[in-house]
Amino acid sequence: MRDVLIAGVGATDFGDHPDRTGRELFAEARSLAFERSAVPPGEVDVLYYGNFMGATAEGQSHQAPLVAGDIGGTNLEAMRIENACASGGYAVAEGVRAIRSGEADVALVGGMERMTNLETDATTASLARAADELYEISAGMTFPGAYGLLADAYLDRHGGTIDDLARIAVKNHANASTNPKAQYGDVIDVDDVLEAPRVASPLGLYDACPITDGAGAAVLVSPEYAESAGLEPEVAITGSGRGTDALALQERDDLTRTPAAEAAAETAYEQAAITSVDLDFAEVHDCFTIAEVLALEALDLYEHGEAIDAARKGETTRDGHVPVNLSGGLKAKGHPVGATGVSQLVEATKLLTGAHPNADAVPEASTAVTHNAGGTVATAAVHVLEEVGA
Amino acid sequence: MRDVLIAGVGATDFGDHPDRTGRELFAEARSLAFERSAVPPGEVDVLYYGNFMGATAEGQSHQAPLVAGDIGGTNLEAMRIENACASGGYAVAEGVRAIRSGEADVALVGGMERMTNLETDATTASLARAADELYEISAGMTFPGAYGLLADAYLDRHGGTIDDLARIAVKNHANASTNPKAQYGDVIDVDDVLEAPRVASPLGLYDACPITDGAGAAVLVSPEYAESAGLEPEVAITGSGRGTDALALQERDDLTRTPAAEAAAETAYEQAAITSVDLDFAEVHDCFTIAEVLALEALDLYEHGEAIDAARKGETTRDGHVPVNLSGGLKAKGHPVGATGVSQLVEATKLLTGAHPNADAVPEASTAVTHNAGGTVATAAVHVLEEVGA
Repeated sequence: MRDVLIAGVGATDFGDHPDRTGRELFAEARSLAFERSAVPPGEVDVLYYGNFMGATAEGQSHQAPLVAGDIGGTNLEAMRIENACASGGYAVAEGVRAIRSGEADVALVGGMERMTNLETDATTASLARAADELYEISAGMTFPGAYGLLADAYLDRHGGTIDDLARIAVKNHANASTNPKAQYGDVIDVDDVLEAPRVASPLGLYDACPITDGAGAAVLVSPEYAESAGLEPEVAITGSGRGTDALALQERDDLTRTPAAEAAAETAYEQAAITSVDLDFAEVHDCFTIAEVLALEALDLYEHGEAIDAARKGETTRDGHVPVNLSGGLKAKGHPVGATGVSQLVEATKLLTGAHPNADAVPEASTAVTHNAGGTVATAAVHVLEEVGA
Repeated sequence: MRDVLIAGVGATDFGDHPDRTGRELFAEARSLAFERSAVPPGEVDVLYYGNFMGATAEGQSHQAPLVAGDIGGTNLEAMRIENACASGGYAVAEGVRAIRSGEADVALVGGMERMTNLETDATTASLARAADELYEISAGMTFPGAYGLLADAYLDRHGGTIDDLARIAVKNHANASTNPKAQYGDVIDVDDVLEAPRVASPLGLYDACPITDGAGAAVLVSPEYAESAGLEPEVAITGSGRGTDALALQERDDLTRTPAAEAAAETAYEQAAITSVDLDFAEVHDCFTIAEVLALEALDLYEHGEAIDAARKGETTRDGHVPVNLSGGLKAKGHPVGATGVSQLVEATKLLTGAHPNADAVPEASTAVTHNAGGTVATAAVHVLEEVGA
């Protein structure tokens, strides 16, 4: 299996971009990635592009050739990958496979979402399409409602309180406050979270990630290409795992676990020949505070039922043993759906190479994991990143 | 590069299915494919699922885990591929890559579209999202309009008339009339085509494919898996090529050629170590009559400017040297967008193995090509299929 190297990464600021189209957002992200990689755009063999709601947000499907047209070339294989909020992570994973297969030497993996241009109820309706329309949405389910159910099931089984969950939001806002790419710069406290209106009991407004515009991109290359082009990428993707679960919660055996992410992590660790003990930090899919708890257990950073205690004890803060979501996470950095999985790669790469404003929290870090989930973790993609030569 | 074998194929009838959801349509297609393949659904490593307009037609994005949930297993990698009308062909190509890479032994590739449940103007609006929203659709462009421009450019450059184009529709209806899976069973003549209302000059209603519901599926396996499972697939995918072009027509140098499909064909033929001379029949993307002309030239079955003469002379009919669209094509078999590229694989496999009602037209056939295009051929996927041991 060939190694896959990250030659360059780029992303827009996450937040409100009322005056910019989706194609403009992605152009910024990929321009930065190409610039930093020193790979000419014309060298791209394959493009995997994550986007979730372009058809409803901008009336634009078929976005891959839009991007391909910008970078030129008809030999390019370009396609959109859609797996709801895991679209970006799956795009990364397909890029990894293309390079490993030997069929590609240069892959552009990217993601973009434009969401704030719609009215909030239209965005909420678009987001709901990531759940089961027939058995969940038409019965009145919303995503906050679904994660509220998961939170109820977890707290009921394993103990813990909404105060514990609140600490996750507080931590991620603190991390975002020193990340200029993040949507939110404000530091909050536990009382802010608890006093916020309930959205779907037990979750309140501050347990949920915001609606965000943004884009991310990464240029992946084979070792052979890197050598012939004189590139010296500092980070490799050494593990790439994916998993799937039934779309509807009613089909699941256990609402306190996320087997799609467990399967993805197992594959990724096996490929990288590591265990969770080797991880220096993690970027995980905290679309709601409870989602971060589930993610850390799926990643085997904590035993089942114990990640809630870790939140209470502050073990995952920037000063903790394995900092989680140093970027600010979906909660505070923002969650432009199709971009998120790629953004995690961008943030983790910068943290590993010391190019991130929060890199001082993990100065010795050489191994990181990213965890991206779709819907109520019906799809999941996990990647292990390692510093080259570390 | 490992060979990729087609273990089984299945498809629904194409047409109006007012009482069936998309998931029901695909369940029929994949059940048939699994049954014919003798591969247990639980063996699937990867699922690539082509769908274009689920978000607007059924309020359902994130469809891959719906399908994955039906066949079980959390180790499955499942994702939706969206490249407009080439979604299915790209799904097939990703399945081929996954098996070639050695990372998968069994791939389920499929596609589904439900279209007739919307009002026609809503379907037309959804289809328009495959073109450039900013520079084409908002300027009043429609797909019939875009292909009308391509037809004008071609006929102006190379000669030929709408009578010649009409013969393509007549041929494809004739082929569909003996294919029970096809949407249309009626035989038409040139006068019918010419007397039909003009939709976008020079193209009339009968130059265009219909709006269709349907699904298709194929189970692809590695030679190692086939051997260990005691399977003896009769057809292999020996070439898989893809290409991309600028999304908007205004960015193209030449409206009489489709370089995305030319690049795809070149790659596919090179992998299969064949030339177009070796082809016994072709299934091509005739969303409009002019599209079949462009396809045959991109596939190098005819020189540029000559496929229109072939239509006039009837060279591509079932009795011709290289029959084209024996299935009835998009024109008369129907065009459920995300399913089309997979359906071409289904039809070609059945034609090669003698399991198709029109197989008597090509009794000695051992090599076939499929050509699937997205938008105005901004994306294209070409596959070469060969009888195993032929």
